[in-house]
Amino acid sequence: MRILLVGASGTLGRAVAAELGQRHEVIAAGRNSGSVKIDLTDVDSIRNGLQQAGELDAVISAAGKVTFAPLADFKAAPYGESLHTLGIADKLLGQVNLALAARDYLRDGGSITLTTGILSEQPIVEGSSASLVNGAVEAFVYAAAIELPRGLRINVVSPNVLTEAMPSYAPFFRGFEPVTAARAALAFSRSVEGAQTGQIYKVF
Amino acid sequence: MRILLVGASGTLGRAVAAELGQRHEVIAAGRNSGSVKIDLTDVDSIRNGLQQAGELDAVISAAGKVTFAPLADFKAAPYGESLHTLGIADKLLGQVNLALAARDYLRDGGSITLTTGILSEQPIVEGSSASLVNGAVEAFVYAAAIELPRGLRINVVSPNVLTEAMPSYAPFFRGFEPVTAARAALAFSRSVEGAQTGQIYKVF
Ligand SMILES: NC(=O)c1ccc[n+]([C@@H]2O[C@H](COP(=O)([O-])OP(=O)(O)OC[C@H]3O[C@@H](n4cnc5c(N)ncnc54)[C@H](OP(=O)(O)O)[C@@H]3O)[C@@H](O)[C@H]2O)c1
Ligand SMILES: NC(=O)c1ccc[n+]([C@@H]2O[C@H](COP(=O)([O-])OP(=O)(O)OC[C@H]3O[C@@H](n4cnc5c(N)ncnc54)[C@H](OP(=O)(O)O)[C@@H]3O)[C@@H](O)[C@H]2O)c1
Repeated sequence: MRILLVGASGTLGRAVAAELGQRHEVIAAGRNSGSVKIDLTDVDSIRNGLQQAGELDAVISAAGKVTFAPLADFKAAPYGESLHTLGIADKLLGQVNLALAARDYLRDGGSITLTTGILSEQPIVEGSSASLVNGAVEAFVYAAAIELPRGLRINVVSPNVLTEAMPSYAPFFRGFEPVTAARAALAFSRSVEGAQTGQIYKVF
Repeated sequence: MRILLVGASGTLGRAVAAELGQRHEVIAAGRNSGSVKIDLTDVDSIRNGLQQAGELDAVISAAGKVTFAPLADFKAAPYGESLHTLGIADKLLGQVNLALAARDYLRDGGSITLTTGILSEQPIVEGSSASLVNGAVEAFVYAAAIELPRGLRINVVSPNVLTEAMPSYAPFFRGFEPVTAARAALAFSRSVEGAQTGQIYKVF
């Protein structure tokens, strides 16, 4: 298979590339890394990157940024002036736009796999934007799955906090049981190399 | 209790007003209806409306618009140029902003109750924006619940399609079991008159 992997240089993305790279051609993409330049917040760069990658069997996002901050810092504010803006523009609309654009480049039966995380259902302090965004992406995936054409599939992987991220994330994730990025990467393999659609693969 | 009800003139809101109005002072709000003018897409109007309402024990949203359209019509597009814009600005950020602003007007232990709908977990064709938005609001509620100060509470009511809406919605909701707005309104009473927080009251 030919697989475009956005975020291939990241903590999670490196493990996904290692897992799928054993059996498939993985084309790495990112803002400043990879052979294809894609910034999820820039629709033209998504389209250009997909165009450059050519025909694909799978498109994966292992990227997505949100703002971690105390709820007290989140004030009522319009889009663009809110602490929710980054999460909505990057991890939410960025991934949704990647999925929507991918329809034009995937072969019949090809798959889209997005990334959320455990915070959609198990919140942490300072994580309200992450929860909001993860919940949005997961519900979008349920819905998009029933309308994609040509047997195209869409799933999402929701990992627990990653073992590799614990040096910096541990204080925010006390009591959460970390999973290795390699274990989370298996869920991307299930999505890409399996045949299901509309699934949330929870790695926790 | 003094309860501000945004969307009090709607199909759902009228039933919520009837249920809670039996025992409490319900202050009706809407863009063009109610004694207080609030447009969820306009942060200043949210703040002004809350200010006008004065001290409150509960803030409820029974409002929230999204775009229903085939997934094929949703193109990759930046915020503001996407078919997702209405849902994100109105039902998503509108309700989130109402909740964030309500913190400054609610008495200790007061509650916020938002509205989603069954599409967060059971999608319909043409419903991808509704699913996305409902999923976002529900996950935000989980997260906000653990950080609200002064015993403030936040819950969400997720109704099935309403019996009263079936004359127009039936073709989109074949096989869904409609619930009356009066039954859905009971869940708002549980949220406001109960003591739980971080709950999704599913009326389906
Ligand atoms: N780390 C965890 O414990 C954990 C747990 C659960 C879920 N997740 C989720 O997994 C995803 C990846 O997390 P991570 O920890 O692996 O992040 P990371 O180490 O910071 O890596 C992020 C990757 O995404 C790319 N990237 C960043 N912003 C981008 C954008 N706007 N457009 C395109 N590519 C972009 C980066 O490359 P460039 O800098 O070159 O763009 C990099 O390859 C995120 O959605 C995160 O929320 C992480
Ligand atoms: N109807 C259903 O079957 C059903 C099922 C599940 C969930 N829901 C959800 O329940 C909520 C209400 O649905 P509904 O069918 O009762 O709607 P509706 O009959 O159209 O009523 C909407 C109400 O909200 C107000 N409103 C609309 N836009 C507003 C805005 N931007 N700011 C403030 N107020 C606004 C309207 O008053 P003004 O026009 O004066 O602003 C009206 O009072 C929505 O979130 C909907 O998704 C509905």
